[in-house]
Amino acid sequence: MRAVVLLSGGLDSATVLAMAREQGRECYALSLRYGQRHAAELDAAVRIAVALGAVRHEIIDLDLSRFGGSALTDASIAVPERPGAPGTIPVTYVPARNTIMLSIALGWAETLDAREIHFGANAVDYSGYPDCRPEYVAAFEQMANLATKAGAEGRPLRIAAPIIDMTKARIIREGVRLGVDYAMTVSCYQADDEGRACGGCDACRIRRDGFAAAGVGDPTRYR
Amino acid sequence: MRAVVLLSGGLDSATVLAMAREQGRECYALSLRYGQRHAAELDAAVRIAVALGAVRHEIIDLDLSRFGGSALTDASIAVPERPGAPGTIPVTYVPARNTIMLSIALGWAETLDAREIHFGANAVDYSGYPDCRPEYVAAFEQMANLATKAGAEGRPLRIAAPIIDMTKARIIREGVRLGVDYAMTVSCYQADDEGRACGGCDACRIRRDGFAAAGVGDPTRYR
Repeated sequence: MRAVVLLSGGLDSATVLAMAREQGRECYALSLRYGQRHAAELDAAVRIAVALGAVRHEIIDLDLSRFGGSALTDASIAVPERPGAPGTIPVTYVPARNTIMLSIALGWAETLDAREIHFGANAVDYSGYPDCRPEYVAAFEQMANLATKAGAEGRPLRIAAPIIDMTKARIIREGVRLGVDYAMTVSCYQADDEGRACGGCDACRIRRDGFAAAGVGDPTRYR
Repeated sequence: MRAVVLLSGGLDSATVLAMAREQGRECYALSLRYGQRHAAELDAAVRIAVALGAVRHEIIDLDLSRFGGSALTDASIAVPERPGAPGTIPVTYVPARNTIMLSIALGWAETLDAREIHFGANAVDYSGYPDCRPEYVAAFEQMANLATKAGAEGRPLRIAAPIIDMTKARIIREGVRLGVDYAMTVSCYQADDEGRACGGCDACRIRRDGFAAAGVGDPTRYR
């Protein structure tokens, strides 16, 4: 069975790809070049897609930096070095990014006649992003099945979010079991061109704590 | 009040822009260069945005022809010269196009702190597209308000689809009242470089019938 898998180049989506492969899915990996600060994440996605056996990998260009509004796409907004206040949404949130990525995946899925989109959203260590919550994923799926020819014709699509309830430690243990080489993945919001992490941003902190909690050696290359 | 207005260059979205302006909205027009067969539609959008007083117009590039699957983006699929069978979805349907456009509009709306997206979907003469139905628009709005920081923080966004229930004749009469110059608009699926219409495709047929039913002279330039 065919599945479109969103692949960012980070730890979570690499694990999701490995899980989809274990389930026997024929995986079409999709990445978005949306104006993020660094290209290392996409370089990582290219290597991960091959290493984990995607049948095809497409990188789609969509320049969200035209709109700005996020530390990840707007050079004038600094990436914070400390966690924000509890309950607040951080400046690293990219407006509607997950919705845009899922929508593009939806178009590709329909063309491929794939009935699943696999999406590495995580609501546990999710840093307060609204578009990583289970109720968001459910609402997207409902909308998607009204949007498409396949849905209208009774071939519904499922948005699989298999790690949404997992702690980072559990995700890492699952990936290690499936042979994911996390040295390939880049989570840092401001990695350098070689993919080396800053060690100080939210994404680095959550990742490092995850390896520690999993009892797995942290393979991240810090600069 | 700010609003993002989806502007294709066709008759419907031009009318929606004029209606939003009449309501006093500060309009941010958004078009998508998605790999459609001809550029005349986007040239029309540029002229319409200026003529109808949008404060800004952005054309976003996103190459959906990479996925294919539609006569509008895949040169190997012919645009039909006759209407399809009732109840079927035509090959001119572009997988998830409206969802992708609305998602990009959602990102821009959040950046602008705009609470409305105006969308020229029409369910009467809609040619059988699933993503032009009122239930689809409602589902997108619900999803959008779970997706965004603004929605999560209690500043909901509305998807306005003001012409969704109108006949083409009524849309045209409304536009004429508001001073829309329909000679600027391009509806044809296979217009030539100067924007001249084929006269034979579904979009041309619906448009011509609309002018006739409205009792308004058809300003369309046919080739």
